[in-house]
Amino acid sequence: MLGFVGLGLYDCRDLTLRGLEILRKADKVYLDTYTSIVPNFSVEELENLIGRKVVSVDRSVLEGRGLFEILEEAREKDVVLLVPGDPFIATTHISIRLEAEKRGVKTEVVHAPSVVSSAISATGLQIYRFGKVVTLVYPDPEVGFYPISSYEVLEDNFNRKLHTFFLLDLKEDRKMTIADAVDVLFLLEEKVGSGIISSETLGVGVARVGSPDSVLKAGTLEFLKRYDFGPPPHSLIIPSSLHPVEAEALILLCNADREMIEKWTKKIK
Amino acid sequence: MLGFVGLGLYDCRDLTLRGLEILRKADKVYLDTYTSIVPNFSVEELENLIGRKVVSVDRSVLEGRGLFEILEEAREKDVVLLVPGDPFIATTHISIRLEAEKRGVKTEVVHAPSVVSSAISATGLQIYRFGKVVTLVYPDPEVGFYPISSYEVLEDNFNRKLHTFFLLDLKEDRKMTIADAVDVLFLLEEKVGSGIISSETLGVGVARVGSPDSVLKAGTLEFLKRYDFGPPPHSLIIPSSLHPVEAEALILLCNADREMIEKWTKKIK
Repeated sequence: MLGFVGLGLYDCRDLTLRGLEILRKADKVYLDTYTSIVPNFSVEELENLIGRKVVSVDRSVLEGRGLFEILEEAREKDVVLLVPGDPFIATTHISIRLEAEKRGVKTEVVHAPSVVSSAISATGLQIYRFGKVVTLVYPDPEVGFYPISSYEVLEDNFNRKLHTFFLLDLKEDRKMTIADAVDVLFLLEEKVGSGIISSETLGVGVARVGSPDSVLKAGTLEFLKRYDFGPPPHSLIIPSSLHPVEAEALILLCNADREMIEKWTKKIK
Repeated sequence: MLGFVGLGLYDCRDLTLRGLEILRKADKVYLDTYTSIVPNFSVEELENLIGRKVVSVDRSVLEGRGLFEILEEAREKDVVLLVPGDPFIATTHISIRLEAEKRGVKTEVVHAPSVVSSAISATGLQIYRFGKVVTLVYPDPEVGFYPISSYEVLEDNFNRKLHTFFLLDLKEDRKMTIADAVDVLFLLEEKVGSGIISSETLGVGVARVGSPDSVLKAGTLEFLKRYDFGPPPHSLIIPSSLHPVEAEALILLCNADREMIEKWTKKIK
């Protein structure tokens, strides 16, 4: 059996009781170390908690030959792959699960809080008022690459009065911050924009959601760019038109300036 | 302090370790019994787990004067409100949180798996390919009410090649099943439809996601209508165009008929 257990957002204590139970009974536990980051996670703490060794596996294992060895192992034994956030929000893990099922290896899933639903719910914005979710990646001007499709998603959502949730690039060597994301949006506006993004556009920055030191802040993009959110992971929301309860939530829960929000709700109906 | 702790999707074991810790230290624990259902949840099991009494509160308390008593209590003591799923996916709880903050009562949130992200991730469909989420409610022909806006969301998503996630009505006396939802969609197609819904449309039914006896099944709406999903909670997804990995996932994880999926991917590009 190959179990996928979600690790949640911040540290070992985001594991559910169900996840813990499966980990304690497993013959072998692997930890995916590359698709995301769990800020305060400690392998040692996890090993103490579950009473067994944890083997860290990186991209070269999970996307290479090592994967097949893990799948063969799971044919005979109870193997668990621990994954940041909810197990299948990242598409890599779906491919691993499908590969297992194709080979007749039974799979099982234990869900955990995902960054998308947790960040949305923490801001007080309503999940019903979001459009398509998108990942914002770094442009690479040297090869002429700009993440134009991300701007198109924003544009499409915004024009339908839907909020846009930006997951920010989490490359091993470069984790996108909210300030970086604002710069990328400014650049895209300049390249292909239709006027949605300006220094006065409302944004909501969410840092380390689900952790005791999470930071939520709503304000103009110019303001967010200069605001100190602390270390990643970060996410950025560009809201469109606000429901009155959402407007109030941004003021009370995300420290938005009341005047700025009132101006925004007058402008974007 | 007023803590909002997510209860997850199926039973007490969906609590995170962080949630458990806060519950064990709380002076008073309230359980919201009306915004959703957690199929195998037992108050007694929870009380044994956390070592204290749990007070169930229903709509009349949370939307009435009882709420102010709870908020006053939270001014002096550590009070926890336990909420199905993730605490703020339901809009009621946001209002309670805002009311607390307005009165200067500190709030805290412990996230848990939400039905939206868990159901999406369990099916193998990609979160990036979903449009706006919508709740489908029962029509009331006697007063001439039809949930036309839900059809409009579907139409808008579908035409942009985005999947639609339907949360199904969970009234205290009537929980919408997938079969009911299909009937409502058929009715809406007849009333205001633009041809998206027919007996041949692809749907994915998800019952009791996150539980050991969860049922996932992809097929035509006509097929889903007759399929035995067992008791609620149910959700329904109407996919639009499928990525090849998604098509494979529907076959391997949601038991879709390969031929049906191939037909669909040829028709809806």
